[in-house]
Amino acid sequence: MATDTSRLPVASGRVAEIREVALSLFARRGYHATSMKDIGDALGIRAPSLYNHFESKQQILVEVMRGTMEQLLRDHIDALASTDDVVEQLRRATEAHVRYHARFRDEIQVGNIEIRALEEPERSRIVLLRREYSDSWEALILRGVGRSVFRVSSPRLTAWAILEMGIGVARWFDPAGEMSETLLAYHYGDMALRLVGIAHAPAASVSAVE
Amino acid sequence: MATDTSRLPVASGRVAEIREVALSLFARRGYHATSMKDIGDALGIRAPSLYNHFESKQQILVEVMRGTMEQLLRDHIDALASTDDVVEQLRRATEAHVRYHARFRDEIQVGNIEIRALEEPERSRIVLLRREYSDSWEALILRGVGRSVFRVSSPRLTAWAILEMGIGVARWFDPAGEMSETLLAYHYGDMALRLVGIAHAPAASVSAVE
Repeated sequence: MATDTSRLPVASGRVAEIREVALSLFARRGYHATSMKDIGDALGIRAPSLYNHFESKQQILVEVMRGTMEQLLRDHIDALASTDDVVEQLRRATEAHVRYHARFRDEIQVGNIEIRALEEPERSRIVLLRREYSDSWEALILRGVGRSVFRVSSPRLTAWAILEMGIGVARWFDPAGEMSETLLAYHYGDMALRLVGIAHAPAASVSAVE
Repeated sequence: MATDTSRLPVASGRVAEIREVALSLFARRGYHATSMKDIGDALGIRAPSLYNHFESKQQILVEVMRGTMEQLLRDHIDALASTDDVVEQLRRATEAHVRYHARFRDEIQVGNIEIRALEEPERSRIVLLRREYSDSWEALILRGVGRSVFRVSSPRLTAWAILEMGIGVARWFDPAGEMSETLLAYHYGDMALRLVGIAHAPAASVSAVE
């Protein structure tokens, strides 16, 4: 977990601890079923001390959700900026998307379930960031179609299909399991290319991967 | 909604009403935030009357989740039994999966979010049905690979990718929107075929679909 959170915006030790413990409780019990007292108990501190760092439970949720989306967008922009080749852009953006969802599983689960617990105007801001992200995917696929490199019947549905298959990873990926995050990312990169009509030979025989 | 629920197991009018109203409240507020009194209020009846039909709020959740999974499995089995051609099996199973997720959006959302609110042994039963479903998808893809019709690097990841991209439909599909459930199903069927290495020309030009 230390390696994971190190990729999120830098926060002082105590703030990072609170966020991590709160995230874990939100993911397991749900936001509404978790009190500031529960968070304090899990950290071995009294609830009032939490308020030195966060105004409210809602503020913790906001920071978790905003930090998560901003990191995802940064990784995505890096992937696109790293090459002009639209095929490589799609591969790298898919790999970044899948790595992200394999790594920040609790953040994704809380983000998807607790969006309804987020108060305005923060909810609209998060929804806007998500929209920005999926629009960028659609634009990427449209660029590939425009260059006659991709062939798809619906750029939007293709973008959403790639996004959704990657989001699913957060539900089942086990970092202690047989498949590494890196191999996983390669597989999804190949699947994304297939979805835009670029057929590669499979990376490995069935028996080697299963 | 009348057309939708008619495909679920037949229930007497009042029971169906209670299930429908409870489902809607669970989807919008969450299971824990919904009381039997809320369900009664929405129906204009007193909470104690609900207990003539359901033992508990938990039993309503159980019936919603079990009914949902059983219907999904039935549609899946019908799709597989309808043809021996593994390509058509994949196409029809994907179309059934997508139609289902386009239609039963509240059921899917409640199913995915509230699985943690389900008590044992029902939770394990639902998890088992889900496992049965995804295993059948993996077996389908393995059959296609065995017949040298499909080419994939990982049958399991390919199965999960198809499942997840279809599940995503429940989050955004709008039956009043521009794209019909049927056209949606065709698009996803084509994408599933691409994922197993069967490249078709896109069904329509970009401009015709977007």
